Amino acid sequence: MTKTVTILSGLIRPLVESRLPDWVEPRFFMSKDEAMALAPEAGIGWFDMYDKRDMAAVIAAATRMKWLNSIYAGVDGMPLDLLAERGTVVTNGAGINAITIAEYVVMGMLTVAKGYRDVVRAQERREWLIESPGKVELYGSKALLLGYGAIGKLIEERLKGFAVDVTVVRRSPPKTTGGAGTLTPDQWRARLGDFDWVILAVPATPETDGMIGAAELAAMKPTATLINIARGTVVDQAALVAALDAKQIASAFLDVTTPEPLPADDVLWSLDNAHITMHLSGRAQDKMFVRAAERFLANLDRWHKGESVEPRVDLTLGY
Amino acid sequence: MTKTVTILSGLIRPLVESRLPDWVEPRFFMSKDEAMALAPEAGIGWFDMYDKRDMAAVIAAATRMKWLNSIYAGVDGMPLDLLAERGTVVTNGAGINAITIAEYVVMGMLTVAKGYRDVVRAQERREWLIESPGKVELYGSKALLLGYGAIGKLIEERLKGFAVDVTVVRRSPPKTTGGAGTLTPDQWRARLGDFDWVILAVPATPETDGMIGAAELAAMKPTATLINIARGTVVDQAALVAALDAKQIASAFLDVTTPEPLPADDVLWSLDNAHITMHLSGRAQDKMFVRAAERFLANLDRWHKGESVEPRVDLTLGY
Repeated sequence: MTKTVTILSGLIRPLVESRLPDWVEPRFFMSKDEAMALAPEAGIGWFDMYDKRDMAAVIAAATRMKWLNSIYAGVDGMPLDLLAERGTVVTNGAGINAITIAEYVVMGMLTVAKGYRDVVRAQERREWLIESPGKVELYGSKALLLGYGAIGKLIEERLKGFAVDVTVVRRSPPKTTGGAGTLTPDQWRARLGDFDWVILAVPATPETDGMIGAAELAAMKPTATLINIARGTVVDQAALVAALDAKQIASAFLDVTTPEPLPADDVLWSLDNAHITMHLSGRAQDKMFVRAAERFLANLDRWHKGESVEPRVDLTLGY
Repeated sequence: MTKTVTILSGLIRPLVESRLPDWVEPRFFMSKDEAMALAPEAGIGWFDMYDKRDMAAVIAAATRMKWLNSIYAGVDGMPLDLLAERGTVVTNGAGINAITIAEYVVMGMLTVAKGYRDVVRAQERREWLIESPGKVELYGSKALLLGYGAIGKLIEERLKGFAVDVTVVRRSPPKTTGGAGTLTPDQWRARLGDFDWVILAVPATPETDGMIGAAELAAMKPTATLINIARGTVVDQAALVAALDAKQIASAFLDVTTPEPLPADDVLWSLDNAHITMHLSGRAQDKMFVRAAERFLANLDRWHKGESVEPRVDLTLGY
């Protein structure tokens, strides 16, 4: 039997080694240099270089790779044109850390609603507050959810438990509900003033780049909160700083910023209505590798049978 | 028509005055002394003295009162024997702030799970954390919910959206589910080691006094969190301090303590795994008076028709 050379990170080894099918010939790397050295042999490769340039270099070197897997959801740093030209199938980590990100979004909304950051500060001072620094209820509030992939769907599910009125943005309204609670991409801007929460869960693509700018912020309610767990580039950050500083919107809960890490002297840190969570939302769990390994093993079976592997990245759309 | 003298706080006046039925003769008080002076005339009284001794004094003076309403859920400070002896009907605020309390519980679980307090501290230092200080997911975790009144039911509803496996404690298991996810009051102690979260939402009664002590804390998982939004007295606080200090349990999220306010030199403040939220959970909203007024107006109609007013406190059970 011809075996397929499969290049994997040593971090994955304990989770998959004993369960790999016999048509797989695994090679594990422990460093970027080892990955670079092994890449040309790869029929299948699972690469997760944190540095986008390293990732691009490994991909460039993997000239025989038919299928590239990565644990990250975002593929905006990958040479997508090159992968498309070579006909490489790409699967990503979409949905792998969706659960914890959805949980983080609800945490962000609740902590902003109840003014929890000020409760933490009072704890530090051992001060017994008499009034709650925040008096907002999620109950009955209205949320606009931009991005309706794995993460968006999980956010919606959780918010419904709080009786939040969730409106999602989709290309085509679902037939079953007649489009209730749904807006199309050309409708949501005109409705921004209706919402208490605007939640960004879109992929980073040219289309979503800067989709929230000065005009969108000006259209939001002054009591509204912007939540960004997508990418920093989805928001015009200078416009956001101005809007927060002028209290044009109440607050922003930002898991992502431009750039990352955000420099210590960035003005965003100085705004008390900016809540910055350092791109931790996806990392606030310890099941990512376990889930990714399970998915990869299931995909190996599909691959061998000639079935499609999932979730497959559309190299033209970029997600 | 004989009118019924109804004594109400001036705080309620703008919410009810124009909507009171004509059989009601309202008298509004602006101070404790005015309340005391008006009390003997009361056929119906809505009193919310924060100080339990003031409340007891007003009740003692209201010798002709047939129905006492209060916005608070807890009636443990009221002279229940006296009220029972006089045959006074008592309605309380059970459920009035249940929504925000349920939201607060989920916030507590999420902030503990994700280590959000340390994220806030890093924000203050303008430090970009690389790893999440908390890596727990609510998803798939197991919660024991003690207390299945208005608040408990709302907590359960919200946690189900997160796919938390919720077990409730009830006197009699519901027939529809065959008792799945339900334990009786004599069963839960033996199962304490099964849960990631132990949530206290019971009323303060002699039966629940000190229900979580050294033995119960020792039976919990070392990774578990205790959440108390009931009353400080439900937990043996000295035993809790010892358990937290020894890391016998991972953490406690305490909206209530003994005493309140917690003195600045109390050891509980010094424990980094104690999260103290100053009895703010019910106050983290601004709809309490609006909801209480709506309920009171509806109850006035029921009262006049001879129907039962709700929610009626059982003066023997004390809730």
